[in-house]
Amino acid sequence: MRLPDDTVARLLESWPVARLGVTRAGRAPLVLPVVFASAVGALWSPIDGKPKSGAALARLAALRAAPAVSLLLDHYDAEWRRLWWLRVEGAASILAARAETLPALAGVEAALRRKYPQYASTPLFAEDPTLLRIVPERTASWCAGDAALAAAQGAGKREEL
Amino acid sequence: MRLPDDTVARLLESWPVARLGVTRAGRAPLVLPVVFASAVGALWSPIDGKPKSGAALARLAALRAAPAVSLLLDHYDAEWRRLWWLRVEGAASILAARAETLPALAGVEAALRRKYPQYASTPLFAEDPTLLRIVPERTASWCAGDAALAAAQGAGKREEL
Repeated sequence: MRLPDDTVARLLESWPVARLGVTRAGRAPLVLPVVFASAVGALWSPIDGKPKSGAALARLAALRAAPAVSLLLDHYDAEWRRLWWLRVEGAASILAARAETLPALAGVEAALRRKYPQYASTPLFAEDPTLLRIVPERTASWCAGDAALAAAQGAGKREEL
Repeated sequence: MRLPDDTVARLLESWPVARLGVTRAGRAPLVLPVVFASAVGALWSPIDGKPKSGAALARLAALRAAPAVSLLLDHYDAEWRRLWWLRVEGAASILAARAETLPALAGVEAALRRKYPQYASTPLFAEDPTLLRIVPERTASWCAGDAALAAAQGAGKREEL
């Protein structure tokens, strides 16, 4: 059973974490957790001030070589009747987060700060202000049934997942 | 900061969900949530009796074409000091879950049923008994600091994530 369009839209607004998949030549895909916000028709993920492994920025090199990415939003639950997932495929680009290269910057920043109060204390950008922009091209979704649908529709209210 | 080896081993035993990334030719990678158990030197994920979208079994076609996969285990938390992730890259194969093709079958089934009491009511296998076997070749990990390490070390006790 697919998730209804309004639930998909709400999850893309409010779900706090996605797992980003990026193709790598001759190697297993890069999969990593990211925060993101929806603004001006795209999904945005900052290279923020959370501590990073050096390898984490491998995402930039991988993305430049293979911009077709997937973002998975999902909910795991020991009660399997509540399982659901939503996958967005899209084209990713890497943007310098400066007003002259990104006219929508103010709106994107506001969306990220509204969604993540953590940015009051964690820098929104690491040294070189950088954002991933993912323009959704296709979505796929699944939920286990009515209990899962109810869980997905109540999303965004839980603090941990 | 990396996760210590004993924590990595415990997470692979007890963490209930992974996000599997599979390369697809000419398209964004497939990323989907899977259950898995550790047994006889590999990680095993059944094509089980949870309801599936037709597309979910796209994983089998994708895996046959591109067996180098990643499994991401991670914890999202509104308290960003508790974030951690663990990624395993490995070679995946698809096995018919029959004793004659898979001598380790009894041990693998036992590990899955021990980890997931849900299999008391959900069939362990859908129509054709099938397992993904992923032989780990490389791991990468990260945690935000001491609070994240404590969270990772306490893993397996939480019911939802």
